[in-house]
Amino acid sequence: DNMPLFIAGPCLIESRAMALQTADELQRISREQGVHFIFKGSYRKANRTSGRSFTGIGDIEALEVLAEIRQDYGMPVITDVHETKEVALAARYVDVLQIPAFLCRQTELLVAAGESGLAVNIKKGQFMAPEDMALAAAKVVETGNKRVMLTERGSSFGYHNLVVDFRGLAKMAESGYPVLYDATHSLQLPAAGQGVSGGERQYVLPLARAAVAAGVNGLFFEIHPDPSKALSDAATQIPLADFSTMVKQLLHLYRCVHALHSL
Amino acid sequence: DNMPLFIAGPCLIESRAMALQTADELQRISREQGVHFIFKGSYRKANRTSGRSFTGIGDIEALEVLAEIRQDYGMPVITDVHETKEVALAARYVDVLQIPAFLCRQTELLVAAGESGLAVNIKKGQFMAPEDMALAAAKVVETGNKRVMLTERGSSFGYHNLVVDFRGLAKMAESGYPVLYDATHSLQLPAAGQGVSGGERQYVLPLARAAVAAGVNGLFFEIHPDPSKALSDAATQIPLADFSTMVKQLLHLYRCVHALHSL
Amino acid sequence: DNMPLFIAGPCLIESRAMALQTADELQRISREQGVHFIFKGSYRKANRTSGRSFTGIGDIEALEVLAEIRQDYGMPVITDVHETKEVALAARYVDVLQIPAFLCRQTELLVAAGESGLAVNIKKGQFMAPEDMALAAAKVVETGNKRVMLTERGSSFGYHNLVVDFRGLAKMAESGYPVLYDATHSLQLPAAGQGVSGGERQYVLPLARAAVAAGVNGLFFEIHPDPSKALSDAATQIPLADFSTMVKQLLHLYRCVHALHSL
Amino acid sequence: DNMPLFIAGPCLIESRAMALQTADELQRISREQGVHFIFKGSYRKANRTSGRSFTGIGDIEALEVLAEIRQDYGMPVITDVHETKEVALAARYVDVLQIPAFLCRQTELLVAAGESGLAVNIKKGQFMAPEDMALAAAKVVETGNKRVMLTERGSSFGYHNLVVDFRGLAKMAESGYPVLYDATHSLQLPAAGQGVSGGERQYVLPLARAAVAAGVNGLFFEIHPDPSKALSDAATQIPLADFSTMVKQLLHLYRCVHALHSL
Repeated sequence: DNMPLFIAGPCLIESRAMALQTADELQRISREQGVHFIFKGSYRKANRTSGRSFTGIGDIEALEVLAEIRQDYGMPVITDVHETKEVALAARYVDVLQIPAFLCRQTELLVAAGESGLAVNIKKGQFMAPEDMALAAAKVVETGNKRVMLTERGSSFGYHNLVVDFRGLAKMAESGYPVLYDATHSLQLPAAGQGVSGGERQYVLPLARAAVAAGVNGLFFEIHPDPSKALSDAATQIPLADFSTMVKQLLHLYRCVHALHSL
Repeated sequence: DNMPLFIAGPCLIESRAMALQTADELQRISREQGVHFIFKGSYRKANRTSGRSFTGIGDIEALEVLAEIRQDYGMPVITDVHETKEVALAARYVDVLQIPAFLCRQTELLVAAGESGLAVNIKKGQFMAPEDMALAAAKVVETGNKRVMLTERGSSFGYHNLVVDFRGLAKMAESGYPVLYDATHSLQLPAAGQGVSGGERQYVLPLARAAVAAGVNGLFFEIHPDPSKALSDAATQIPLADFSTMVKQLLHLYRCVHALHSL
Repeated sequence: DNMPLFIAGPCLIESRAMALQTADELQRISREQGVHFIFKGSYRKANRTSGRSFTGIGDIEALEVLAEIRQDYGMPVITDVHETKEVALAARYVDVLQIPAFLCRQTELLVAAGESGLAVNIKKGQFMAPEDMALAAAKVVETGNKRVMLTERGSSFGYHNLVVDFRGLAKMAESGYPVLYDATHSLQLPAAGQGVSGGERQYVLPLARAAVAAGVNGLFFEIHPDPSKALSDAATQIPLADFSTMVKQLLHLYRCVHALHSL
Repeated sequence: DNMPLFIAGPCLIESRAMALQTADELQRISREQGVHFIFKGSYRKANRTSGRSFTGIGDIEALEVLAEIRQDYGMPVITDVHETKEVALAARYVDVLQIPAFLCRQTELLVAAGESGLAVNIKKGQFMAPEDMALAAAKVVETGNKRVMLTERGSSFGYHNLVVDFRGLAKMAESGYPVLYDATHSLQLPAAGQGVSGGERQYVLPLARAAVAAGVNGLFFEIHPDPSKALSDAATQIPLADFSTMVKQLLHLYRCVHALHSL
């Protein structure tokens, strides 16, 4: 297949309207460019730096928005779960469960996600060596569920900073699972502000290009109608209006990279 | 007060017998040296590197061992909780709840622990800047529970390695909460073996001395009757037979350090 | 221009024969693919991990080999200098002077290199933030010599490991100087062996592709007729026999990346 | 011996007057507390972040100030050398040569320092694993000069930050050489300002205490009559007026730590 997998959507389902606006644009890009998206949206944020940050519109309300997008747009949807009790709930609404990076070592959560039978996307912990992600994947696979993806989103590099180790993309691929690159969280500067994470959005595209050239199977983006008003990750989400061009560049590059092998 | 707080006990309640043997020795040291211990034991391990590792003897069974020690030895007991559902259960058996380092950003868990009314010990995440721990503490305090302690256990330093930033002890103290130094986990080499964490036990004592000299309020040790047979953290737990001398040195040093201010 | 700059050659001039064999192959690739090389060779190694390592065949002898390649192959040549006294000597034989990464803060050396009037390639220190390389470049430019290039070769990431921060390539480019990516030293594992640096050669090509996609102006490779017998950097030098295919892939990718802007 | 070695003095010999004022105070503390100092002063700064920074009053002038202090105060003196050509010059004026951290891998410089016959203090590179410092020391020792000391001054921890790995003090001690802790440079924030290094002076004392408790043989401090006016390292040098109390605390602690072994 000469198409990468794309996961895209807002950090958080802030409202039904903004989620549908985002899905509209993904549908348009999908038709225009022949690419397939998995729609991403958190139904709540469980690990905000500060306890006072906005955490969501209500679990059921947000999950129903995801279900609506799945049905009306024909796009698979993904959301993240933080405790085992959330798995059964979320699994009724989505196609893929995501394990947040901080939680990639929580055995019980990985097992519960595996037992749901849904595909599971495990984010690599900021504290984790890439080759050790095979152990996290194995916790899911041992439930009999082999549909595991691994996603890079940066490693701790001193305080308030992340670095993407591009060797890690290859090392994770050696485990045999599809490897995605999270193009927006990787550019975060964790808690660099007053209890709010900053970011360097200007490097999202060059690093996404680098990940494609390094050989990833897919890309993960947080996108938002107006990031300056986003209720989370305002510094790194990509404006909806810019996303189409990014996708076009990355698809073109992906095809070019895959043609290199025949040179 | 010229006494540091000590938290000590086995990584995991591997059996009633080994827990009581450990409590016996702590009681003996307590009487001999006039120091107070909080007895520590995990009732299950939820974040093992590999899903095949031993995770416990059963939740209730292990919690009842902790309750027995609390009652028969008159020692407060502490255990760690990994999901909100565990809080109500554990709170019936222990005096202090501990938030594991990987989970120090999970708002819901911090809130649930705070709402239990028990004291809460938050381990600093390996990915977390020390000054940001004030935000984690605030999530507990906002429930009306001010009994928060912060514990350093190392920061990610490349892969498979941790470094203790001793500036961080002072920076966490600036938040106003008691600061403890976890003398054994800080010397771990995460997942350095085949899915098993290694460690450098030979540096546990010099770094514990350094932490006392830097001004911590307390120390945390994992101790075991025979670490070579320990079912977790075998590379860093301190043999029961060695612990008394360590405590003696650290108490002596603590008094010395606190006398420096009057020089 | 739709061609990247390539710097390539052996880590060390181990003998006249191996240097000429390498130059032969570069000449062949150059004619075949229309790419231009600057021939690289150290005339001595001044910073070996161990004092017992081989350091060279003699300064003058090695510099004369470089001069011979410059004249007979029509290729510009580059070598590294470690102290100011070496500048005047090396400048008589080469076209570009290189400042080693450990020495990128040595003002006197940068000034001496600048005053030579030759182009100067400054490797980014493993301890240096990319944006601070503008200050290193300024030390050369203040001599009136504006021919400065900056080369990334990895940042310290814990002990015995380097990580390439691909944001840094863009940050250095913001300074206005051409930015190169050192594809082989970036994969070193410093002093990971018994006083000898190891490396992960298998990731040289995917990371070089990533650097091209991120937008570098050029690439730096150490290549050797038989790396298994190399007297330095044996773990990362690229076999001469493999280099032609690498160059072909990277040129193709470079053209593709530069065409993205017109999409 | 129950006395640590102290190296202290200004970062840079800014003038004869400020150097003598500093030596006066060291002499007073020495008589009062029975401690011995080696007087430290750079005669030029060769690795300033920015090429425009002040680099010294002239080499010979500064070295003569050091020689005057050696003679008139009976204190040994130490200065740092950056290229082999400086060794012969500096060796005529000082008792100990210091190899800067960035230069700890420069074989020729280490050999030249060793051949001077003077004691050599090697700062550990910010990019260097502590156990690898034995290889740097060996380069000096192989000249027949066994008078080597190793000094910790922090390891790169992300950008613009250093962390002191206290395990490293013990690991360097395993090499058999005396180990010092550089209490002021370890608190630098490299190039954190506009081409000027910042620092966290408030943590100099707690970390120096920690180093003593961890078991170092000596301590290194930069001190200045008025750090706010210092021409280099203004953020970390200790005011002359505060140094006596620091020394008193650290001596008291040192004796206490050395008495622990007999507990």
